[in-house]
Amino acid sequence: MIIYDLIIIGAGPAGITAAVYAARKRLNMLVVTGDIGGQAAWSGDIENYTGYQFISGPELAAKFEEHLRQYAITVKEGETAVSLEKDGQVIRVTTDKGSYEGKTAIIASGKRTRQLDVPGEKDFKNKGLTYCATCDGPLFSDKVVAVIGGGNSALDATLQLTKIAKHVYVINIGSDLTGDAIMIGKVKDDGHVTVLNNARVIAITGEKMVNAIKISRQGKEEELKVQGVFVEIGLIPNSDFAKGIEKNQKGEIKVDCHNATNIPAIFAAGDVTDVPEKQIIIAAGEGSKAALSVFRYLSRNRL
Amino acid sequence: MIIYDLIIIGAGPAGITAAVYAARKRLNMLVVTGDIGGQAAWSGDIENYTGYQFISGPELAAKFEEHLRQYAITVKEGETAVSLEKDGQVIRVTTDKGSYEGKTAIIASGKRTRQLDVPGEKDFKNKGLTYCATCDGPLFSDKVVAVIGGGNSALDATLQLTKIAKHVYVINIGSDLTGDAIMIGKVKDDGHVTVLNNARVIAITGEKMVNAIKISRQGKEEELKVQGVFVEIGLIPNSDFAKGIEKNQKGEIKVDCHNATNIPAIFAAGDVTDVPEKQIIIAAGEGSKAALSVFRYLSRNRL
Repeated sequence: MIIYDLIIIGAGPAGITAAVYAARKRLNMLVVTGDIGGQAAWSGDIENYTGYQFISGPELAAKFEEHLRQYAITVKEGETAVSLEKDGQVIRVTTDKGSYEGKTAIIASGKRTRQLDVPGEKDFKNKGLTYCATCDGPLFSDKVVAVIGGGNSALDATLQLTKIAKHVYVINIGSDLTGDAIMIGKVKDDGHVTVLNNARVIAITGEKMVNAIKISRQGKEEELKVQGVFVEIGLIPNSDFAKGIEKNQKGEIKVDCHNATNIPAIFAAGDVTDVPEKQIIIAAGEGSKAALSVFRYLSRNRL
Repeated sequence: MIIYDLIIIGAGPAGITAAVYAARKRLNMLVVTGDIGGQAAWSGDIENYTGYQFISGPELAAKFEEHLRQYAITVKEGETAVSLEKDGQVIRVTTDKGSYEGKTAIIASGKRTRQLDVPGEKDFKNKGLTYCATCDGPLFSDKVVAVIGGGNSALDATLQLTKIAKHVYVINIGSDLTGDAIMIGKVKDDGHVTVLNNARVIAITGEKMVNAIKISRQGKEEELKVQGVFVEIGLIPNSDFAKGIEKNQKGEIKVDCHNATNIPAIFAAGDVTDVPEKQIIIAAGEGSKAALSVFRYLSRNRL
């Protein structure tokens, strides 16, 4: 069995940048990942990745993938990590399809969307209810839709949908929208949007497809007729597989300023970590730092 | 006098990214800087800025500048900071041309090239001796040149020059080249390069223009006939103006994981800080983190 210098779990902005840096250091490396591009691939319009004034998420993800593919890196795509543990000097990563060994690892497995956990959510998934405005928004041309959430990802989804849908309700549990002022401004100025604050979704209803949501607002229940529901209430770190690694209360992997975890030889980068800011440019920077930390670790330990 | 929400010193990858993020948070901001693009503008070929498989330093710097200019940000270009100090709740930044006040500051003033400090260096500056292969390399077509240094910037300069010059000597004080294996490999494989390890420059000589360098190697002095000298022996942080701010022995500003310095309201990002990796993608990520830290600081203190 090959013992790789480095196994990278995940191929979003952090994992891809780590891989590019490790390739340039000529490390013998394996990347295991469910998909390529991570959350960047589901993002809408991106205006804050320095060097690209304006690019869509899928376009940026495609550029990241091209960058990765430029190097002779073994990428096992479509594999989900189910465990990662250190056994003596070897780190063993097991996925749903295989098992791999490395001297070091970088966990860059990102986050997945949080579910509402209300009646009807499971029944109407992909029948009008979705977690990805970028992917599924175009299916809702001239329909009335609801975005659930009030932060940047909900605002991003809303701004994408106003170009497509007839009307967008924003169902926000908080007393005001959060996120970038520039995005809040755009949402509030848009004639096709109604923001409902202090509102909680209590059920999704319909027949074959979604036709309404029930919300609770100011002590009263209301029904809104909608043909689409976009759930944008936050994200959960993909960190369950990383046994014995210290995490914070949110399940994010704790890292120091050099992207080291509590276990030597295991590093982490990007949205799966407790770095408070979740941004593509930051994830990329952290991925680079993690790869350079791995390189130093291997050199120092003559591995 | 206006008191800005934020004054950013420097407009390299860190300062520009911080400015873009702060603009998106609608902070009232001033950028003071000597130049735009920072070290990126003097870099050769860049292959590790994720999303651009291959781009030249000046091209990437131009894209950064366009990104910055997209927002209505006041940029004072051609100004060098001479002091920065906190006076009560106000941070006062003084440059060679003016004085500005802010509630917060981000120091992103980067680094400048280190000098050799040998006889002849000052006399032949811009008369065959230069600190920027990207800027001045094209002037040395078919000439014999020497690159002084053995790290990544020396390798980068060498690889740029092999495309232009007749022959390139690399004068390296160490026993072997350091830097990315991929770059070392390219330099060693290039038929137009001679690497001299354990070699120290002791003088630059010439008449109107450089015509030789004197080196000391294995206890002996040698003269090499060259028409060009590229000094690439490292960088010095531009941090002298930042009074009372904690720095490490190299003069780099100490920051925590959130880019805070020892003085509240003053943050730092990029190559001027003690973050050990000096990379464009990392500087950009740190700039973004610093801007988001500023935003949180202003909100938390209701400023």
